[in-house]
Amino acid sequence: MSGTCIEELTHGIEPPSEEWGQKARGRLDTLTKPLGSLGRLEDIAAQVVAIRGDDPGEYVSKAAYVFAADHGVTEEGVSAYPREVTRQMVLNFLSDGAAINVLARLHGAALHVVDVGVDADFGSIPGLLHHKVRAGTRNMLREPAMSEAEVEKALSIGYQLGSEAAAAGHTMIAIGEMGIGNTTAASCVTCALTGAAAGLATGRGAGVEPAAYANKVRVVEATVRKHCNKSTALPALEALRCLGGLEIAAMAGMMLAAARHRLVVVLDGFISTTAAAIAVGMAPAVHGFLIAGHCSEEPGHKLLLDHLRLTPVLSLGMRLGEGTGAVLAMPVIESAIALYRQMATFSSAGVSGATP
Amino acid sequence: MSGTCIEELTHGIEPPSEEWGQKARGRLDTLTKPLGSLGRLEDIAAQVVAIRGDDPGEYVSKAAYVFAADHGVTEEGVSAYPREVTRQMVLNFLSDGAAINVLARLHGAALHVVDVGVDADFGSIPGLLHHKVRAGTRNMLREPAMSEAEVEKALSIGYQLGSEAAAAGHTMIAIGEMGIGNTTAASCVTCALTGAAAGLATGRGAGVEPAAYANKVRVVEATVRKHCNKSTALPALEALRCLGGLEIAAMAGMMLAAARHRLVVVLDGFISTTAAAIAVGMAPAVHGFLIAGHCSEEPGHKLLLDHLRLTPVLSLGMRLGEGTGAVLAMPVIESAIALYRQMATFSSAGVSGATP
Repeated sequence: MSGTCIEELTHGIEPPSEEWGQKARGRLDTLTKPLGSLGRLEDIAAQVVAIRGDDPGEYVSKAAYVFAADHGVTEEGVSAYPREVTRQMVLNFLSDGAAINVLARLHGAALHVVDVGVDADFGSIPGLLHHKVRAGTRNMLREPAMSEAEVEKALSIGYQLGSEAAAAGHTMIAIGEMGIGNTTAASCVTCALTGAAAGLATGRGAGVEPAAYANKVRVVEATVRKHCNKSTALPALEALRCLGGLEIAAMAGMMLAAARHRLVVVLDGFISTTAAAIAVGMAPAVHGFLIAGHCSEEPGHKLLLDHLRLTPVLSLGMRLGEGTGAVLAMPVIESAIALYRQMATFSSAGVSGATP
Repeated sequence: MSGTCIEELTHGIEPPSEEWGQKARGRLDTLTKPLGSLGRLEDIAAQVVAIRGDDPGEYVSKAAYVFAADHGVTEEGVSAYPREVTRQMVLNFLSDGAAINVLARLHGAALHVVDVGVDADFGSIPGLLHHKVRAGTRNMLREPAMSEAEVEKALSIGYQLGSEAAAAGHTMIAIGEMGIGNTTAASCVTCALTGAAAGLATGRGAGVEPAAYANKVRVVEATVRKHCNKSTALPALEALRCLGGLEIAAMAGMMLAAARHRLVVVLDGFISTTAAAIAVGMAPAVHGFLIAGHCSEEPGHKLLLDHLRLTPVLSLGMRLGEGTGAVLAMPVIESAIALYRQMATFSSAGVSGATP
């Protein structure tokens, strides 16, 4: 992969403002509530202020992105659902029938569906962002999932869409996906980045049965062994190329652009957090822009959240993807922002402080 | 307390419909998502359908109630804030400056503030529901917090307001409170109902310092010992009268009415859950109408949630009261309902099922 491209994608990413974060903490302590009594909401408010600064205008314009792609490794029988479900679910997104459609509508997030590598010809069907790099990755058990040029292209697509989201005025984005086989890719990347054993980083995905689960663990183990024959962890970008997916690359690219433009990034589940681990590997300052929307049932997700030192907002036993956990966390994040901005202070409301 | 009154308050409360709950489970399994992949949202959707039936109209009309009252036990120095903060915070609610105002506005819940026992003369100030039973409870370290007539009156006020909420078309209500000293009351009730030791059921409330905390534990212990001199747990109503509060009684009354009228009741924190434990003690069928909005930082809250076998929706380290945790959980509950009602099915969307 070209150094120029990486440089462009990671250029100008600075961490959120510590100064604004401190100011936010100070203001939170003046609001009419016992000190610290909003718990995690106070951390979230301070993080958002650190990201956005104390913009007196409206903070929150939300969007959700679903990146769809297929995976060559589905040849190995790792998924509970047939490969064509990726295509079928994209059509379901376009018909407003999937879980993410319902949640994005309910919570006011503009929904965008991106084909970055589905193994199907969508023609010029409207409502879909057409950015197919290739009709699915290669089978990573046998060869790297992507070429350098393909990774670069997928990253750039996500980056471009992230820049467009910022230009459109969005301030908070949920990043989700659809791709039969992509928990297998996420498990492989997790092993490569954290050194975790395949058995610990692999879950039942969309719900494989016990025999198929055992096979999935074997595939993850063999794939990781094939591409990581050194004792050191694989660099993020190399893990992405060999073991990732086109949607994972595009999501990572979008996170880089979001950090560059100081957007709040709400992560979804295992796949989304895998993309975050790669983006952070490429540009560590991305970390400060991430909020983990939820903790899914996939065991590898917990490993990655710990690896990234992220505390999820919700923990509801979900394992659906599509960005659902991210959009579901948005009302909590918005609540934190609204409390920060709208609550009265002890002095403005004439409320007595704690007894000295 | 008169048997007639109890009979009236618990009359006609039937558990949610198991049949509708089963039907909901069946429908959830036809929606375009891996089986069970919405986790807790599926439980919530099934519970709401069991409560409301499969009403084809709009399910959700939300309201939030904040019951305010003072506590005689504040004489014992159990709280971090002076007693007049109850009055001041009521005025803050009426001026739209408190956390619950921000959250109720953001999430579209109609907010009602009820004076059921604040030690202050509010005159006929508009925006407040004037139902003062008495200017605060008696000091329960020395005598029962309320007389039988006072408990009965406070319960009836809550019951009446719950019936009015149903008549106004609300289908989901958050029940919160404000009352300096009321975590002490809640800790005492928790000890009386669960047999827990005072040290385990008592927390820092709005934030007492270590020395004051040790005193608070001693007050809880001595108060419980004074009123519970038998080896058996105190009956719910007797625990309420001796150790509760006027707001706790009114909240319990509202829960009884809500169950009678088949409303979804979203509990807030420790005090709200204490009221729920009393309502369930009076009429066990109330249990099926309860959703625990969150788990607060108060250690007694976790004890009571376990006692009631309730799993909280959120766990964000909050300890503010006012109904904030309940209203914050409402978007999650609404999401569960919207997903249940609006998602496409595998057959309607033409999506393949799991590989056999």
